[in-house]
Amino acid sequence: MRRVEIGQRSETAHRANLSAILRELHLRGPRSRSELVRITGLTRSAIRGLIGEFAAAGLASEDRAAALGTPGRPSALVHLNPERALALALEIAVDSLAVALVGLGGEVLALARIDRQRGHTSVEQVVDDLVELAAIVDSRPTARAALVGVGVSIVGVVRRSDGLVSMAPNLGWRDAPLVERLATALDLPVPIAVANDADLGALAELRRGAARGAEDVLFIAGEVGVGGGLIVGGRPLTGTAGYAGEVGHMPINPDGVRCGCGSIGCWETEIGEGALLVRAGYPPDGGRAAVEAVLREAEAGSPVARGALDAVGHWLGVGLAGLVNIFNPGLVVLGGRLSRLYPFVAPTIEAELDRLALPGPRRLVRVVPASLGVNASLLGAAELAFEPLLDDPAAWLHERQVVPVLATA
Amino acid sequence: MRRVEIGQRSETAHRANLSAILRELHLRGPRSRSELVRITGLTRSAIRGLIGEFAAAGLASEDRAAALGTPGRPSALVHLNPERALALALEIAVDSLAVALVGLGGEVLALARIDRQRGHTSVEQVVDDLVELAAIVDSRPTARAALVGVGVSIVGVVRRSDGLVSMAPNLGWRDAPLVERLATALDLPVPIAVANDADLGALAELRRGAARGAEDVLFIAGEVGVGGGLIVGGRPLTGTAGYAGEVGHMPINPDGVRCGCGSIGCWETEIGEGALLVRAGYPPDGGRAAVEAVLREAEAGSPVARGALDAVGHWLGVGLAGLVNIFNPGLVVLGGRLSRLYPFVAPTIEAELDRLALPGPRRLVRVVPASLGVNASLLGAAELAFEPLLDDPAAWLHERQVVPVLATA
Repeated sequence: MRRVEIGQRSETAHRANLSAILRELHLRGPRSRSELVRITGLTRSAIRGLIGEFAAAGLASEDRAAALGTPGRPSALVHLNPERALALALEIAVDSLAVALVGLGGEVLALARIDRQRGHTSVEQVVDDLVELAAIVDSRPTARAALVGVGVSIVGVVRRSDGLVSMAPNLGWRDAPLVERLATALDLPVPIAVANDADLGALAELRRGAARGAEDVLFIAGEVGVGGGLIVGGRPLTGTAGYAGEVGHMPINPDGVRCGCGSIGCWETEIGEGALLVRAGYPPDGGRAAVEAVLREAEAGSPVARGALDAVGHWLGVGLAGLVNIFNPGLVVLGGRLSRLYPFVAPTIEAELDRLALPGPRRLVRVVPASLGVNASLLGAAELAFEPLLDDPAAWLHERQVVPVLATA
Repeated sequence: MRRVEIGQRSETAHRANLSAILRELHLRGPRSRSELVRITGLTRSAIRGLIGEFAAAGLASEDRAAALGTPGRPSALVHLNPERALALALEIAVDSLAVALVGLGGEVLALARIDRQRGHTSVEQVVDDLVELAAIVDSRPTARAALVGVGVSIVGVVRRSDGLVSMAPNLGWRDAPLVERLATALDLPVPIAVANDADLGALAELRRGAARGAEDVLFIAGEVGVGGGLIVGGRPLTGTAGYAGEVGHMPINPDGVRCGCGSIGCWETEIGEGALLVRAGYPPDGGRAAVEAVLREAEAGSPVARGALDAVGHWLGVGLAGLVNIFNPGLVVLGGRLSRLYPFVAPTIEAELDRLALPGPRRLVRVVPASLGVNASLLGAAELAFEPLLDDPAAWLHERQVVPVLATA
């Protein structure tokens, strides 16, 4: 059972209202009191009280901004103070590591990314590198006190309850105790939450990117492997243990090749970076540079490069047709390196959807490239770190001193 | 935007509490006041007031039941009065039509099912037959007054917003105005809601069958075609227009045969009834009798029948491996005729999941046959009809006389 108590008392309503206001300001920026009244359906005096609580904690302020071009008294805008509540976002990708300090409201205050050698490595090595990066972005004295949480994006399969990295083939990890090691090494009195990079890319695109405002979204993240971040009714699909979204491992070609996961003919073996490169005559581990070379060759008219992209477009379309029939999404967002491929494969994808998807869901879906670029997952990790605060600001406002380090650490 | 108002006022909380109590009694049967206090987290006096509202409307009563084997004063049980709020459930299947009158709490008060000839037919003919059946089960004078809604299950793709049947290949329907015709023919002052049969089978199994209490469930309904009812975080996956769940039409075999939907190698072409029958040497439209014959032959040791079932088990496993990786469900429920096949294909399915699914989600999933049998979708249609009442009993208790026929009609 997720909720033990299903009834609602006034304290519950008060907490829900604080959460609604904070989420609104965090996701959509400054608002006037009148706008908050209209959006929430609460009374003016209720809004005044709630804003007062945030202001007393230093989380929000009101500015009397001159309203452009409208006559009469300008109305005060309630805005968040980004420096007073910070998220530390970490990202472990196939060929880079990144750390960012993000303020409430989504402003990126500092960011550092370094290349890492592809291939297997130890949890300890990655944690050491991340702690070093974190020291660079998190150097100001106020940062530690204002930190509300740490969010980690990883290219792997994660159990959400405790952040266990069940499998990260690109790193050579299985059942890796990442959160435990990070908690010890970072030594911060805030919770650490870990999630799959595609899930977090989807969250970021949903909140601040190409999928803003959409309710049913498939985010397909293609880097070396292929992951999926699936948004269903406005909420991330996590599954029973947080493993959901591994669309890269749906069997799609029974006559295909063996996948890194041990199965045969997974989607990833047909649309992943390696599949494109091999078809274009490059070694499968050629990386970003080789992908860019293939795209240049295709632009110059090379039939081999074009054929390789057409094949990827074909298999992208086949897999998407199945997913569109299963999920009936309004939007498919192609992220990671797939967003680079998008202009070359879009017509093939659309033709395959016409051929293979059911007419009802096919009519309703748009396929678009991601808009947040390389930092989507990192920004998603920050959102993950803010989530407990957004969900229940009351705990943070009034009970902060007694909040223990939460379960995930 | 789904919700315009995100704030919560006390009237909102009151409505939510009425809903929580009614849902609890409807889904889990009679409860004592103390149990309701414990379950909802509300105070004794709040519970007393809420029960009083239901009692005044005749929806609930309290009985002082002798508690078996416990000393002291027996506690009163709050139970619903099924006859005071009724759902009319209709089902349009490939080879039968059914109507049931179901009381609040889930008791089936009357049920009629008739065979129908397979194949194409007009909306008007089906509506006429359903109205005739409805007249049989709905003959008592009190039924009409106590009716809260009509729920319809159909073997087709349905747009939830207005019940438009976008596609029902087995009936030969496209964009069929079923709700409109039913509303005219039934002439009842209550809303009519339509949904896909697999979605409703899933809802029924979740509430009253094999998936009770589960949060993440894939219900795979195999009749002539293959549909899916997907439960995500305890809620049905509907997609952006209610089309979601068409797992039967995920491309799974690029070298396969053409599907009724126009695509190639859909899952349905490998695990549907026709695929089993053809492999076993029967005509594809042999129906239920032919399927039972194949099962008898397999039991008697026929290699052809066993080979046909193994092939279906193989493709079931391949498709489920993909779905398990995508959804990370706790439970897969095989419904409709797939539940009949279950004992014959279970070992093959489990072996394919071991071979093809990712270790994390694979460990956590159980595959079981459905438990509600042939009436699962019909019972789901009744639940669909009760949903507006369960969601907001206040509207029904206090505003019934001014509630117009809702939008779906």
